[in-house]
Amino acid sequence: MGDGVTCKIGPSVLNADLAKLHDESKRLVDAGADYLHLDVMDGHFVPNITFGHPVVKCLRAKIPKTFFETHMMVSNPDQWIDPMADAGVNQYTFHVEASEDVNETCRRVREAGMKVGVALKPGTSVEAVKEYVDVADMVLVMTVEPGFGGQKFMSDMMEKVRWLRENYPALDIEVDGGVGPSTIQQCAEAGANMIVSGTAITSAPDPKDIISTMRSQVQASIDKLRVQVEV
Amino acid sequence: MGDGVTCKIGPSVLNADLAKLHDESKRLVDAGADYLHLDVMDGHFVPNITFGHPVVKCLRAKIPKTFFETHMMVSNPDQWIDPMADAGVNQYTFHVEASEDVNETCRRVREAGMKVGVALKPGTSVEAVKEYVDVADMVLVMTVEPGFGGQKFMSDMMEKVRWLRENYPALDIEVDGGVGPSTIQQCAEAGANMIVSGTAITSAPDPKDIISTMRSQVQASIDKLRVQVEV
Repeated sequence: MGDGVTCKIGPSVLNADLAKLHDESKRLVDAGADYLHLDVMDGHFVPNITFGHPVVKCLRAKIPKTFFETHMMVSNPDQWIDPMADAGVNQYTFHVEASEDVNETCRRVREAGMKVGVALKPGTSVEAVKEYVDVADMVLVMTVEPGFGGQKFMSDMMEKVRWLRENYPALDIEVDGGVGPSTIQQCAEAGANMIVSGTAITSAPDPKDIISTMRSQVQASIDKLRVQVEV
Repeated sequence: MGDGVTCKIGPSVLNADLAKLHDESKRLVDAGADYLHLDVMDGHFVPNITFGHPVVKCLRAKIPKTFFETHMMVSNPDQWIDPMADAGVNQYTFHVEASEDVNETCRRVREAGMKVGVALKPGTSVEAVKEYVDVADMVLVMTVEPGFGGQKFMSDMMEKVRWLRENYPALDIEVDGGVGPSTIQQCAEAGANMIVSGTAITSAPDPKDIISTMRSQVQASIDKLRVQVEV
């Protein structure tokens, strides 16, 4: 594993109080979130509509420094690159299943000044991102079907994470869906280093404690894997 | 004009601080809003994504009593009827341009326990709603192209409002887009009684004053038209 890979915890506000997005986000940032994972859904790529760039832009005005990743569960990812860059987004993660030309979408995201994430639905094989790893900053392995919070973690997705970690020691690998204290160890051992967690954090009485516990577990695995690689 | 028609002012939060939707909405309710007009956009019917039913549901939990109208700028209005009813919406206003079977969509909205609004884009002729007036509770005449707040009011849409008022004295007729103190008189004289106003209210130092001024003007026109009809 590359020296640059560190654990980052990115809470998702999907199941938080969306009528108080700023308050909820601030609470998560204050609890030690390394970044915010913002779930954008258009009701076409997935059967749910959450929020779009006007909401993200309002949130950015109130939270100027935190790293914002938007997870674009939309059927036309190219359409929202410029609006999201304008809204102050740091990383634009889109689904390979939705883009007609993934390389071109990656290029446009980068040109707009954002980091690039490529996401895989559970049914998409990990080999689908092979040719994009060089042009992406991160791969998101979905561990539930995208669309709704609070779903059950799919352990069999860990094979994808392991394959990516073995082949790309320096890659940022994110997991999203059903991740919390009871499933974090599997993610850590497989090699994920960017951890999206929704309900487990937002509904916890002490989000700070959950975040720091999960971070310690993941970081311990990263350190262990690094030693193995170096030996 | 029927005895039942009264003026109602429904502020739109579209250009308000969407990261603080509850605070902004509460401010408008406290300022005397008769209802809240919630702009739902899916990025397909219009080139913008605002928010969907999860956000409306969170808002409803905090604002239990105010009448919520959702203006569904979405390409498949049938899809969100049940989620919006579940979110606590009182009136579901959808675009006739988006529904494959307007009568059937009206029926489903009513069956889900909500009032029915049918909306017309500026390019759609008012005759398009003729056959639906009996099954709808309200007709929305858009006075800008739907999609974004802060646009310039289209005076030529007043012909549609006048036609509707002349033919349906008891109908609720709503206008939306660029409506504020400088354009309210045109809407009032044409016969609109449900007034959506965004920026003019949300960015005013005293929203209460704007709301009550606009309400007085519209109510005066309603009373005048009623006298004419009775005479």
